[in-house]
Amino acid sequence: MKLTILRGELNEAIQHVSKAVASRTTIPILSGIKIDATYSGVTLTASDTDISIQSFIPLETQSKTVATVTRTGSVVLAAKFFVEIVKKLPNEEVHIEVGDRFQTLITSGATEIQLVGLDPEEFPVLPSIQEDQVVSIAGDLLRDMIRQTVFAVTTNESTPILTGVLWNLQEGTYKFVATDRHRLASRSATVAATDVRFSNIVISGKTLNELAKIVPDQNVLVDIVVADNQVLFKLGNVLFFSRMLDGTYPDTSKIIPQQFKTELVINTKALSDSIDRAYLLSREEKTNIVRLVTLEEGGIEISSSSSELGKVTEQLSVKEMRGEPLRIAFNSKYMLDVLKVIDSEELLIGFNGAMSPIIIRPNDHDRSLHLILPYRTTN
Amino acid sequence: MKLTILRGELNEAIQHVSKAVASRTTIPILSGIKIDATYSGVTLTASDTDISIQSFIPLETQSKTVATVTRTGSVVLAAKFFVEIVKKLPNEEVHIEVGDRFQTLITSGATEIQLVGLDPEEFPVLPSIQEDQVVSIAGDLLRDMIRQTVFAVTTNESTPILTGVLWNLQEGTYKFVATDRHRLASRSATVAATDVRFSNIVISGKTLNELAKIVPDQNVLVDIVVADNQVLFKLGNVLFFSRMLDGTYPDTSKIIPQQFKTELVINTKALSDSIDRAYLLSREEKTNIVRLVTLEEGGIEISSSSSELGKVTEQLSVKEMRGEPLRIAFNSKYMLDVLKVIDSEELLIGFNGAMSPIIIRPNDHDRSLHLILPYRTTN
Repeated sequence: MKLTILRGELNEAIQHVSKAVASRTTIPILSGIKIDATYSGVTLTASDTDISIQSFIPLETQSKTVATVTRTGSVVLAAKFFVEIVKKLPNEEVHIEVGDRFQTLITSGATEIQLVGLDPEEFPVLPSIQEDQVVSIAGDLLRDMIRQTVFAVTTNESTPILTGVLWNLQEGTYKFVATDRHRLASRSATVAATDVRFSNIVISGKTLNELAKIVPDQNVLVDIVVADNQVLFKLGNVLFFSRMLDGTYPDTSKIIPQQFKTELVINTKALSDSIDRAYLLSREEKTNIVRLVTLEEGGIEISSSSSELGKVTEQLSVKEMRGEPLRIAFNSKYMLDVLKVIDSEELLIGFNGAMSPIIIRPNDHDRSLHLILPYRTTN
Repeated sequence: MKLTILRGELNEAIQHVSKAVASRTTIPILSGIKIDATYSGVTLTASDTDISIQSFIPLETQSKTVATVTRTGSVVLAAKFFVEIVKKLPNEEVHIEVGDRFQTLITSGATEIQLVGLDPEEFPVLPSIQEDQVVSIAGDLLRDMIRQTVFAVTTNESTPILTGVLWNLQEGTYKFVATDRHRLASRSATVAATDVRFSNIVISGKTLNELAKIVPDQNVLVDIVVADNQVLFKLGNVLFFSRMLDGTYPDTSKIIPQQFKTELVINTKALSDSIDRAYLLSREEKTNIVRLVTLEEGGIEISSSSSELGKVTEQLSVKEMRGEPLRIAFNSKYMLDVLKVIDSEELLIGFNGAMSPIIIRPNDHDRSLHLILPYRTTN
């Protein structure tokens, strides 16, 4: 392998794939980045076996020559050093030449780097995915859907299936659900009419966080290809492969109440600010318990207390209040997580007494729905 | 105590003093902020006994009323919660009222906070310092002098005196020295003619880092008052007290060579970039060893190697080279620390063979001087 490539483009591709480099592994090859040079372009690949990312650098763009391949070939280089050094090379042009036993010479300006390369044959082979089940979604929307659900996955590895987000696609409606058994977040969206349908696909929350970082800011379409136990996301020249989580996701549809004994319509920011203040005190008690009480004279009272520090109490006006009076306690951190991802100005909260799930959703659409279980306190 | 105060000004004062709040302490009063309200203003104080910071809020500025004190008094409030909640109060006006047993009521808009207050009598008394030994220094210069020396203090608590920076003031020349026995940084400056002189004052590096954060960006004068075992920094309405470190600082003057067998004049950024690349590889070996060799054909070669990863080599032209050829190895991290704080475009490096200290200083002035001991390697 022998090639010349522009540092900026090489660095960009490295940044993309480096998110899939195994950080703690006993298998040296997984801590590397594979470079494949052909006469059509240069491909970088990294894989920790759960996720794999591939970035293709074409030899030319409309405006300039990006890379020149003099001899095709492949090599795997230790990511940790390679990622850092390419950023700091002195010259815009970088030459890479692989010699005997994958010894790799990188030169740029007066800098000469000899690197121990690894055998690309040992690198994991990426899954081959048949592209007959493709659905396209706007990158912004995909990122929003991830952001509005992924915070509710569990971090507890004893229920591995709940560390992922459930994806369903039925009749053009895409739906994401996440729950850790104390709360639930769901988000749906309509995608362009398509024959594709799938159900019970579960993708790791960590993977989705990495994916969200890689989705470009420009609002481009992301192609999603679903195969046996793999999902492939195509983002222009970047391919992002993820394994699905094994197991059956619990049926959450039955726990969501359709009617409420008490309903509040309230300004999202006012409620968020108020609960944030109560949370500050509640977290000193490690419980995060905040109380919400409806007031006879209208409005609600939000409060929390700490035996050591004191008490926060505040009254909040609501836009609408329907149904029975209420006194309920909940985890304020969970509530803040929800309020952070609701983009609408007003939200609706529904209750069925102090012991039943709390439902929160935007007041202007029903594409988002959040559930929090209350604390069962005695006072 | 009963007062009304603007949230912005209260918050600014809290941010200043909170740097002195004891973070890990078994003495509850030290994790608090003391508030004193008098008819001339409101004073906030925090102290971890090593450093104490006091911020005074006058009742009025030229343009507006900042605080109104209805009843004078004092209270100590737990800093952790107080610091966070004041930022998030809903209204620009904050009312604070202290009742029985230091129970404190904070109200702002519809938010009501009842806090357990502590007895201000238990709070440490700040040292009273006679202000007959005052020296004034520009804030920017003080910050530079700290930045250019403090990185060289030791973090090893077995030599406590070396965790501090040595300050001397003689005949209008202010001098800072720091060393961890492997390297040394010194910086001097001329201050306005003054009768004040002191020597062997040692101030903790950690304290100086906190002080540097609090020195305002606007180039104001900082008054420094030296007393028995305390130094007081006066920054407008903020007073910063620091204890001096006990002990005698070693005499470092003799280890600095006055003549060199080899001298290089070199571009600071070019050398810094080159050593940064070699450092990247050297740190994989944990030793940070980088080699510098003068070349027969002129210029120098910078290199490092890692048995696992490979080798970085690069040649660098120098502006001037005088004296004997040289081959030397040193800790690249120490060298980068120096190169980062040298603001001059060119620097001078002086050597006396592979076993003797390396001296680095700006080429255009002699107010900064840095020393690094070389590695004694066999090849």
